[in-house]
Amino acid sequence: MNNRRTLLTELGVFETFNPTLPAAYQSTPFVLLANIAPALQHHVLDQMRRPRFVAADTMDLWLKVARPDLLRLLKRLDAFVLNDSEAQMLTGEDNVFVALKKIHRLGPTHVVIKQGSHGSILSSPRGLFLCPAYPLQKVVDPTGAGDSFVGGMMGYLAAAKGPVDDHIRRAMTYGSVVASFCCEGFGLQRTTRITRAQINQRVKELERLTRF
Amino acid sequence: MNNRRTLLTELGVFETFNPTLPAAYQSTPFVLLANIAPALQHHVLDQMRRPRFVAADTMDLWLKVARPDLLRLLKRLDAFVLNDSEAQMLTGEDNVFVALKKIHRLGPTHVVIKQGSHGSILSSPRGLFLCPAYPLQKVVDPTGAGDSFVGGMMGYLAAAKGPVDDHIRRAMTYGSVVASFCCEGFGLQRTTRITRAQINQRVKELERLTRF
Repeated sequence: MNNRRTLLTELGVFETFNPTLPAAYQSTPFVLLANIAPALQHHVLDQMRRPRFVAADTMDLWLKVARPDLLRLLKRLDAFVLNDSEAQMLTGEDNVFVALKKIHRLGPTHVVIKQGSHGSILSSPRGLFLCPAYPLQKVVDPTGAGDSFVGGMMGYLAAAKGPVDDHIRRAMTYGSVVASFCCEGFGLQRTTRITRAQINQRVKELERLTRF
Repeated sequence: MNNRRTLLTELGVFETFNPTLPAAYQSTPFVLLANIAPALQHHVLDQMRRPRFVAADTMDLWLKVARPDLLRLLKRLDAFVLNDSEAQMLTGEDNVFVALKKIHRLGPTHVVIKQGSHGSILSSPRGLFLCPAYPLQKVVDPTGAGDSFVGGMMGYLAAAKGPVDDHIRRAMTYGSVVASFCCEGFGLQRTTRITRAQINQRVKELERLTRF
């Protein structure tokens, strides 16, 4: 359940996408460069005016076909988010905690490795955080769970006051919860119906499930 | 790293083992039936006088060659501890949270599913607990980690005062930590040198690593 194999990547409209950001977007302090060709992630980041916190996601394809662009991007990020098999591809390292160290050396001060239903791990200036996944008895479709996770995390950070490091652990639990809703429907079926109260309730539940 | 395949099981002296417990052992309140043929686990349990809490571990082999004995044992247990692939073999269920429910129906009020470096999950009358594994940058030899986990857990419970359910979460974190030491050496190399202070320190660290 925790292994994905990419059979075919159809970029569709992204193949020739060359986004120009509206002026209002260019001063957003929290920037999430979701998974797309690293050259496009650079192109978007080039248009931003002094962002406060920049995160990026990626996928196995770019590690294979655009590694130099990706390595150059890593030097421009605060946070890099990737899954465990991608971390292994990038670093050649099977042990996730060693892989985290190697990725820090490539640039980002914050690295998040996603492990599907096993949760995720943050390595940051304040050390490690083991973030739980929300327990689901039925996974309808995990497509988009990774994007939901990092989207939920960045949304929480953007709304929080004060230093990012004061909030990033809780932000990740919000990401976990948003991802759990994503898995409960095909496409955006379930995600578009989430309420803030439902999210808060699952985050509270995660607290209860991990306290000892 | 989290998948084990049994190539050969050499029972050795266990093949004809028929333990008779010394009288002093028969009144032990906390009983751990470590992994061995379910018939032998029954034989040991038959000699116990009104134990307070009985836990058992098992392995894939017994699910294949001694399933009826094992199913009969489950009805005599308070806690059953097994790994995720064994839970799948036993229940035919890929989702670990559904598997937990199915195992409860076979008898035990407490079920622990071990997930190697991803930690473990308890399902009990007080609900679920997601227990972290202690992060290791180097695993020398995971042999015996499962036994160390359940041994550490039961040792903690046996030493604690009051209801088992007040302590079992923390007991599992002690099990996680003892297992982490086990993985840091071949055989008993590292395990025999553990101090209580070292265990307590890693448990504290696990608390810091999971709080949000």
